[in-house]
Amino acid sequence: MDRYRVAGNGLLDRRLLLLSGGTAGLALAQTAAPEWMKTPGRGFSGYGMPAKSQEKVQRAFTAAPGRLGTGSSRTPLHLLEGTITPNGLHFERHHNGIPDIDPARHELMIHGMVKRPLAFSYETLLRYPMETHIRFIECPGNSGGYVGAQPQQVNAGSLNGLISCSEWTGVKLSTLLAEAGVDPAAKWVIAEGADAAAMSRSVPLEKCMDDAVIALYQNGEAVRPEQGFPMRLLLPGFEGNMNVKWLRRLKVMAVPVDARDETSHYTELMPNGKARQYMFPQAVKSAILKPSFGMTMRGPGLYEISGLAWSGLGRVSRVEITADGGKTWALAALGDPVLPKALTRFRMPWQWDGGPATLASRATDETGDIQPARSAWVAQYAPGQFYHFNGIQSWGIAPDGTVKNVYL
Amino acid sequence: MDRYRVAGNGLLDRRLLLLSGGTAGLALAQTAAPEWMKTPGRGFSGYGMPAKSQEKVQRAFTAAPGRLGTGSSRTPLHLLEGTITPNGLHFERHHNGIPDIDPARHELMIHGMVKRPLAFSYETLLRYPMETHIRFIECPGNSGGYVGAQPQQVNAGSLNGLISCSEWTGVKLSTLLAEAGVDPAAKWVIAEGADAAAMSRSVPLEKCMDDAVIALYQNGEAVRPEQGFPMRLLLPGFEGNMNVKWLRRLKVMAVPVDARDETSHYTELMPNGKARQYMFPQAVKSAILKPSFGMTMRGPGLYEISGLAWSGLGRVSRVEITADGGKTWALAALGDPVLPKALTRFRMPWQWDGGPATLASRATDETGDIQPARSAWVAQYAPGQFYHFNGIQSWGIAPDGTVKNVYL
Repeated sequence: MDRYRVAGNGLLDRRLLLLSGGTAGLALAQTAAPEWMKTPGRGFSGYGMPAKSQEKVQRAFTAAPGRLGTGSSRTPLHLLEGTITPNGLHFERHHNGIPDIDPARHELMIHGMVKRPLAFSYETLLRYPMETHIRFIECPGNSGGYVGAQPQQVNAGSLNGLISCSEWTGVKLSTLLAEAGVDPAAKWVIAEGADAAAMSRSVPLEKCMDDAVIALYQNGEAVRPEQGFPMRLLLPGFEGNMNVKWLRRLKVMAVPVDARDETSHYTELMPNGKARQYMFPQAVKSAILKPSFGMTMRGPGLYEISGLAWSGLGRVSRVEITADGGKTWALAALGDPVLPKALTRFRMPWQWDGGPATLASRATDETGDIQPARSAWVAQYAPGQFYHFNGIQSWGIAPDGTVKNVYL
Repeated sequence: MDRYRVAGNGLLDRRLLLLSGGTAGLALAQTAAPEWMKTPGRGFSGYGMPAKSQEKVQRAFTAAPGRLGTGSSRTPLHLLEGTITPNGLHFERHHNGIPDIDPARHELMIHGMVKRPLAFSYETLLRYPMETHIRFIECPGNSGGYVGAQPQQVNAGSLNGLISCSEWTGVKLSTLLAEAGVDPAAKWVIAEGADAAAMSRSVPLEKCMDDAVIALYQNGEAVRPEQGFPMRLLLPGFEGNMNVKWLRRLKVMAVPVDARDETSHYTELMPNGKARQYMFPQAVKSAILKPSFGMTMRGPGLYEISGLAWSGLGRVSRVEITADGGKTWALAALGDPVLPKALTRFRMPWQWDGGPATLASRATDETGDIQPARSAWVAQYAPGQFYHFNGIQSWGIAPDGTVKNVYL
């Protein structure tokens, strides 16, 4: 393997992924038919579910005491593969529960600084021209646990699971705004959800006229109730909270509205006591998922390191991996195609020698933005500020094969 | 709109999709909060489900009398959007039911003309290097209804729903075959499933060494039981039946095995009474889904025509649409990116004048292959032979807005 080494502590050329995964197959012992080949299996279903043995693959959720619909659930990233999140496992963040909306009685209103205030029924929007894109949504609180003084010993889904990626289909918001006729003096659009929090956010008009979509379908089927059925605002690359679910109202304005969720939450407290507001894009970021906390290495040998990288500003251009705590880095292979504002799977072969190792990933996006060291990220803000954490994450591998969260 | 016309009977420039969908929004009447904004909504769930109002979005299935696990279910393509099929709605084709496999006791064996017969447990395969691709699987019997003398008046899912598209992740089969050491004289691999039909197919070794994958994940989560949990053979672009589910055995051989499902089924009867066997790739094809049978046009005006195109030989290079029964054609817009051996969504704006119209789509792939006329396709074969139908499909629009299946 020596001629394939590309960085310290066993990192191997990514082209090795095309060669061999090692020699883990066991000599063939017997070929007797198992009992499930001896009787007919079960029949068809209208809507299928995962295998019974996959019951542990669930979102983990926490809700406020006495307010069962206020909190979040996390995608179990460490148990998944690829880049698409199945709809049943998309992360959730609700501010007062999931409303049970009758789509026949739901309307999307566009009003404020427009020539023609309009209302669109669900049926009406289904007849509009649509577009389809694979895009991630990430809560700005995702990975906030990394600002703690000590590394949390929890799995990668708990740390990073406030991100999910779907194929979204819907109507371009610019189409609807053009129909309403936006006042040239307008600069902002206030988006309001039809939940019991009337969750509202101020969105720059420029974003609404760019790639914003009224999402009606998610991975082919109608958007799920947890994701805003019958419709949500999709603002690719912008912080999750702005992608307002159960969207019912867009008010065109000259100024932002200072809504509760852009003042009490989702602002960044600086060391001088002032807060930065309206920090919209989710910056470039990555996480190694295999191996990660809770998994155990089965002795020295060839492994695949894999994980996810993303940027709210465009495409991931490269992901570097270290196995020696940052002394040397090498390029991981990226999934094909790399899509803008979507999850990108990276992979790297690794020859583990059985000794201690510190793994980390560092992503760069097409704007040239690169993940900072965790300590550099933390130093920018007041203690405890955790929104938009995108510092480098690392795992420590012990000789006994256990994997721990460590700070580089 | 006249300056945007690109073909007869109202087809408009595809760049119009970027402009306006028309003026369907109603003047805003009231903004009173609906009752679901007045009480907290429901809380979190570990694994979510579609909205109650979507209960009609189901697979339709037919099974043999007294053999509830023998038959097929179809993806309701006419009720979906985008290109990804949600896992719960992936089409099914079973030959003796869905086995209930304990993954801890399932093995994939590789034997026959190899140096080292090997067995791979599920756990072992999960540790191998993987790759991720969006690919369709299509039953060769899909769209077989089009060979009937009269057009069937059923929805597009019933006609074309034996195709689905997922993001698949798994281990390259070439990696495992290299580990076993294939005899240079070998030419075929016999794949066997662990179902009660022991469903088997002969696969050219060349395909196994090319882009074949042992699929372990589907749209991020473990492959569903209906799709072969814990593992299926994925042969991108080859007829669905060969993508053997519940894969337990790969026997490397010099010759194909003439298995039941490649002799009694999945052969093509020619006019001279001989049958063609081993016709593997699914050729270029397309279907308009919006509008389609069961939908009703709501009067003259601007509509979006949309549908799916695909080819088992590579990328779709173009989709042409006619609204005047084939007299004139114009190019539809294709989703971005267009992926090889994956579903591609096409869209086209259409100004319906309220008169009779005959819509059809015609796809071409990157090999230059183009869909034939239905009549030309049918004339190639003995009466009733329906495997691999890829002729042009058409819908007739009546002045009352109803949509019927018609033959061009």
